[in-house]
Amino acid sequence: MATTLGKTNSGAAFGRSIPRVEAQAKVTGKAEYVHNLRLPGMLYGKVHRSTVAHGRIRGIDVSAAKVLPGVYAVYTAADIIKLIPEPYYGPAFHDQPILAVDKVHHVGEPVALVLAADPHVAEAAAQLIDVDYEELPAVFDEVEAMTSKAIVHEVLKPAGTFPDLKHLKGKRDTNIALDFHLRRGDAQKAFAEADHVFEHTFRTQQVLHVPLEPFVTVADPTPNQLVIHTASQSPSFVRIEIARLLGWAENKVRVKVPYLGGGFGAKLYIKTEALTAAAALLAGRPVKISLTMEEQFYQITKHAATLRIKSGVSKDGKVTARECEVWWNGGAYADIGPRVTQKSGFTAPGPYDIDHVSIDSYALYTNLPAAGALRGFGIPQLVWAYESHTDMIAKALKMDPLAIRRKNILREGRPQATGTLMRDAGIEKVLERLAERMDWEKSFDRGSGTLRRGRGIAIGFKASISPTTSVAIVNVSADGSCMVYCSTVDMGQGSDTAMAQFAAEALGIPVESVTVVHPDTDVTPYDMATLGSRSTYHMGHAVKLAAEDARDKLMQLAKDVGLSAETTPIPDIFRKKYGMQAGNIVGVGSYIPTYTSPDAHGQTDNATPFWMIGATGAEVEVDTETGEFKITRLVNLVDVGRPVNPAIVETQISGATMMQLGFTLFERMDFDAGQCTNASLADYKIPGIRDVPLVMENEAVDMVQQSGPFGAKGVGESGTFGVSPAIASAIDDAVGVRLTSLPLTAEAVYRGLRAQAGKPLDE
Amino acid sequence: MATTLGKTNSGAAFGRSIPRVEAQAKVTGKAEYVHNLRLPGMLYGKVHRSTVAHGRIRGIDVSAAKVLPGVYAVYTAADIIKLIPEPYYGPAFHDQPILAVDKVHHVGEPVALVLAADPHVAEAAAQLIDVDYEELPAVFDEVEAMTSKAIVHEVLKPAGTFPDLKHLKGKRDTNIALDFHLRRGDAQKAFAEADHVFEHTFRTQQVLHVPLEPFVTVADPTPNQLVIHTASQSPSFVRIEIARLLGWAENKVRVKVPYLGGGFGAKLYIKTEALTAAAALLAGRPVKISLTMEEQFYQITKHAATLRIKSGVSKDGKVTARECEVWWNGGAYADIGPRVTQKSGFTAPGPYDIDHVSIDSYALYTNLPAAGALRGFGIPQLVWAYESHTDMIAKALKMDPLAIRRKNILREGRPQATGTLMRDAGIEKVLERLAERMDWEKSFDRGSGTLRRGRGIAIGFKASISPTTSVAIVNVSADGSCMVYCSTVDMGQGSDTAMAQFAAEALGIPVESVTVVHPDTDVTPYDMATLGSRSTYHMGHAVKLAAEDARDKLMQLAKDVGLSAETTPIPDIFRKKYGMQAGNIVGVGSYIPTYTSPDAHGQTDNATPFWMIGATGAEVEVDTETGEFKITRLVNLVDVGRPVNPAIVETQISGATMMQLGFTLFERMDFDAGQCTNASLADYKIPGIRDVPLVMENEAVDMVQQSGPFGAKGVGESGTFGVSPAIASAIDDAVGVRLTSLPLTAEAVYRGLRAQAGKPLDE
Repeated sequence: MATTLGKTNSGAAFGRSIPRVEAQAKVTGKAEYVHNLRLPGMLYGKVHRSTVAHGRIRGIDVSAAKVLPGVYAVYTAADIIKLIPEPYYGPAFHDQPILAVDKVHHVGEPVALVLAADPHVAEAAAQLIDVDYEELPAVFDEVEAMTSKAIVHEVLKPAGTFPDLKHLKGKRDTNIALDFHLRRGDAQKAFAEADHVFEHTFRTQQVLHVPLEPFVTVADPTPNQLVIHTASQSPSFVRIEIARLLGWAENKVRVKVPYLGGGFGAKLYIKTEALTAAAALLAGRPVKISLTMEEQFYQITKHAATLRIKSGVSKDGKVTARECEVWWNGGAYADIGPRVTQKSGFTAPGPYDIDHVSIDSYALYTNLPAAGALRGFGIPQLVWAYESHTDMIAKALKMDPLAIRRKNILREGRPQATGTLMRDAGIEKVLERLAERMDWEKSFDRGSGTLRRGRGIAIGFKASISPTTSVAIVNVSADGSCMVYCSTVDMGQGSDTAMAQFAAEALGIPVESVTVVHPDTDVTPYDMATLGSRSTYHMGHAVKLAAEDARDKLMQLAKDVGLSAETTPIPDIFRKKYGMQAGNIVGVGSYIPTYTSPDAHGQTDNATPFWMIGATGAEVEVDTETGEFKITRLVNLVDVGRPVNPAIVETQISGATMMQLGFTLFERMDFDAGQCTNASLADYKIPGIRDVPLVMENEAVDMVQQSGPFGAKGVGESGTFGVSPAIASAIDDAVGVRLTSLPLTAEAVYRGLRAQAGKPLDE
Repeated sequence: MATTLGKTNSGAAFGRSIPRVEAQAKVTGKAEYVHNLRLPGMLYGKVHRSTVAHGRIRGIDVSAAKVLPGVYAVYTAADIIKLIPEPYYGPAFHDQPILAVDKVHHVGEPVALVLAADPHVAEAAAQLIDVDYEELPAVFDEVEAMTSKAIVHEVLKPAGTFPDLKHLKGKRDTNIALDFHLRRGDAQKAFAEADHVFEHTFRTQQVLHVPLEPFVTVADPTPNQLVIHTASQSPSFVRIEIARLLGWAENKVRVKVPYLGGGFGAKLYIKTEALTAAAALLAGRPVKISLTMEEQFYQITKHAATLRIKSGVSKDGKVTARECEVWWNGGAYADIGPRVTQKSGFTAPGPYDIDHVSIDSYALYTNLPAAGALRGFGIPQLVWAYESHTDMIAKALKMDPLAIRRKNILREGRPQATGTLMRDAGIEKVLERLAERMDWEKSFDRGSGTLRRGRGIAIGFKASISPTTSVAIVNVSADGSCMVYCSTVDMGQGSDTAMAQFAAEALGIPVESVTVVHPDTDVTPYDMATLGSRSTYHMGHAVKLAAEDARDKLMQLAKDVGLSAETTPIPDIFRKKYGMQAGNIVGVGSYIPTYTSPDAHGQTDNATPFWMIGATGAEVEVDTETGEFKITRLVNLVDVGRPVNPAIVETQISGATMMQLGFTLFERMDFDAGQCTNASLADYKIPGIRDVPLVMENEAVDMVQQSGPFGAKGVGESGTFGVSPAIASAIDDAVGVRLTSLPLTAEAVYRGLRAQAGKPLDE
């Protein structure tokens, strides 16, 4: 290889559909995952879980478990506390104990841990543990939680992790972890003056991300460091949080993430890491804890929500005022729920230009498993509500769904509910292109007889997680090959490939010359986390800056030795300086976008560094006799700025769409008194290949995010936004049945059809 | 931890005897070594070795080996060539084949490799391989090699690796790999004019470094990279050389070095790496090759040498001219021999101020195992010769050994043989302090009867390896803890501790806050190698520069957010900038000293960035009836500039001294027609605890290397310089027997005593 520093930003690497760098490793089965890791002397940990939703622990009898042959140790909170006096973790509140201390707060909560060299022995021993509970009143519904006398946590300690949650206190003697309020204009006055006022309430269910790879952590207590191999999207957070728990310096904890078998938001913050780390330190041996598919249902869920929307609308369909009230079911531990509540909260009125807005968004504790981050971070739930609401208004006013959106959408330069002006937000472009792709203004075959056809469109938008930091290092070797160091986790979204493209584009070298190093906090610098579609923008900037720094240094090096970096192959520049194939040029890039904290009314002129836009059009065919329906066409339009890698962007859109399709059509965690009753993939259906719509089209509109690296911005979530309401509206369009709760089932349609006909269900 | 950026260069971290950072890992047996590494599916490789010293391979019959149950594969050069068409490696010449191609050049040369999941099966199969040789004339002696018609290599391909070996060609139809010549003044004329001319010839033997950990490599062909775990002092070199062999980019080869169980120069350049890498790629499986202690004797040796020194001396003991001729026995492959020949060559006249100098230094091929780098890189052999010579002159002139040295030593500012002026070279200081510690000018008990006592002193010096490059990265985390990334290999010399001290001193933070990351070419930047006592100076500079860069950036960061870095705890600076515990400050340092290539006469004004000085005083007690002698006192004085860590410097001196004591007293590889006949630690004695002199004192004189990082320079080799000649002179002083060959054995003394008495040996 005798690469010369080519032109930067030439389009040679960026914007091209180069194959994924990890493709070969994955298709040949050679990619490394934490599950494959076995260390000498390693013990397996199995968890004994709470059987009650809320209760005081009177006693834990581990005697039978301890004497089971092959058991190495049994730990309860009493053991953990010897190592970690304050064994509570969490990104928003330090509310979640490593093992239950005194109380349990949900069914499935870890109460004790068994270690054994044989995981089956550990499993058997975990069953032998007997816990005596004094049961306490429990609350499961998010709206009830607002007023319930069953209080999940008596005391709360804010984590102080995120600057935008600095005001976080948690309200004593309530279940409210965070309440977000936004006021713009005077909604009440506007309602009074409006021609029409519409109010609807929507509900979404508890769901679960079920990546192929369940939660798994191996902790290895080496002499100088605690090394944690974990399936995590947030290695830097894990390092800092485990160090905090132990009272250690950051550099005494090393977190390594090899390939990740899917994440989607599930594998953020602390999941199995703290328990595994504590167990390994107590045992003085490497410990692996890997959850079964079933166990994951007991430990985590996603925010169910109740969403009430009220709009004041003029005769001609202009929305003049909107009031949104959102209750997020956070489960027993806040996890990142308060940030979901706040970050999604301020976009609750949707991508509409409304002068008078009132938003109240509540993160609530209940006695269910803790709700973690969902792909879309609250937005799919919100879009489900506000776009269903939009179409219900349109129907009431006899307006076309496209027309009412054209009248109300936020156009470039207009202020969003926070007051932040819209910039590079392709709302109009996405909407118009969707209409075009759907042939919206042409005639549509509405079916006949018992098979009726309908269609719907929906559009949503999302702010980025801000302010968050990414750091990258770009190291050019003496032969011109290059390593990129960043803590972005490639969980299947193709970030390794994208980062190689950013570095190659900025340096002006072939993308094949670039290797991206996997996250390892001893190796790769800080990154807030891989979440919220932030990596392309934030880490993209950091890698670009690092590559530009390396390029500048290489130019200077060439100049120092009397050469031109534009015409001299990189190896010759090094050779002239160092006399041999020696040395490195190391560039560093650090990126944090500017951000302005909202005022007491939720107003700020800089709420987000960029906006993500996603819209979906659905065509359905409904059987009026059974309520069964087929999605005959799904068209997904997004604004991702300039796509880094169009082929990967396409798979991101289709992947996100299919995930949301699962949440729309059949995924729902069922609970009975807090006990999940469908905790397996046999009972909890996720989309399969037969669930893919007959026609599915995905497109990124032609946009440039001016503030983005080479014009790019995030894409991971935009495909989820419009799916649920587009399908619900298509059903309504087909048969006049409006569903307001997810999932949209044939049974619900059938019930609607029967009610519409004024007939009992069983006739 | 809430560390504030303290004063830089305050002496808080540098110059203190803090405990070694790896001490706990080592004493608890938890330190990781390549030998402990087992990968899934890993195969073990065992080598079939040549039984002849020089021969053409007529045929290799691997049929019996291949069918042995459990054998996975048997490879010969024919297989290697399919993967690597030019399978020759080496730092000076590409002369060493991965497996013998057509010819073998020494007994023990690898001819074939067997892979099996069970190493014993591989071993048994390797024995079943039958090779048919046409034997060729061989040469073993370095002086004979100058004129022998047995030519080891017909064709030579210079590697072109090192800028200072650019003129390297190898002489066709001779065994001379490199001939180094230096001329200063007119030695022949000065001899003619001298009052006295003395000429002596000295010999040193083949020895072996036998670190507790033998050579071992594991190569793992992962999908995107070839990962090499190896016990190597030169990970960057291994990466570049393996990439070159394969025709790959540097970043497709990853070289990892965990703890190293000793090196001393043995584990440099390519040893087991190329064969293991090729086997792993051919097999498509991880492969481990670990040599037994015995095998190491067949694969490597150290330069035996013949050294002729001639001096013109005035009546009062002033040396006016010196001629040195040195023949280095390089064995069958050059390895780094040419550089030894050149680098040590120019200090062959010793640390003396001599106007007229003539040096001829030859690297010679012979049919012995390849000679690798020795701790001291040729200097212990040279000092042995020139300091014995000094005392033989003194004795002839009836001068005191201290007096003749005082008259002739190179003083500060005077030109050395290359013309380079001496700077910060504590020759006089070391000599005077040695005399003081030895009470040289006081009366000395010379013994009586059959137990006679004597004493000797010797002083040597060494240039550094120049120009060579080191790069370091210093990464400060948001909590103020810090990681140092460098490819210096801690093989027991304490470099991890030293680098932590450099970083802490430069940043002004506690040394406990610093972690040093082990060499891994995917992680730690380029370093030429850990050799020649260069790391403290070169990598010390790089780490200091990187830490200063990080400090500057941290100061700037504080300024940017309106804080003072001197008074604000580091975590608070980060928190102000990033709003949370987030981000890193990454500093980069790259160091290459200035260097001027010598002219055709070996003259340069800048031969080395610093000089290492070492001197030893020995007191011995000799039994005149048996020749047996005891070292009753050994005093070692060195100039290391300012010691980074006095306690570690002390152990470096004593370790080097003990190693040289082994070479002085009993270590010698015996060869019979090229076959090593004492290839085990049962037959090849290394020093044990009982061999430590009754009194051993080590001291670093008070010096500052102005050009060094915080005034430091290297220390790893200085303890070796004076040991051999000081002991030989002490024996001569005790009983009048002057030995001129190493090792110094009781038998040789006895023979001398008998000869002195004019008696036959067996009387």
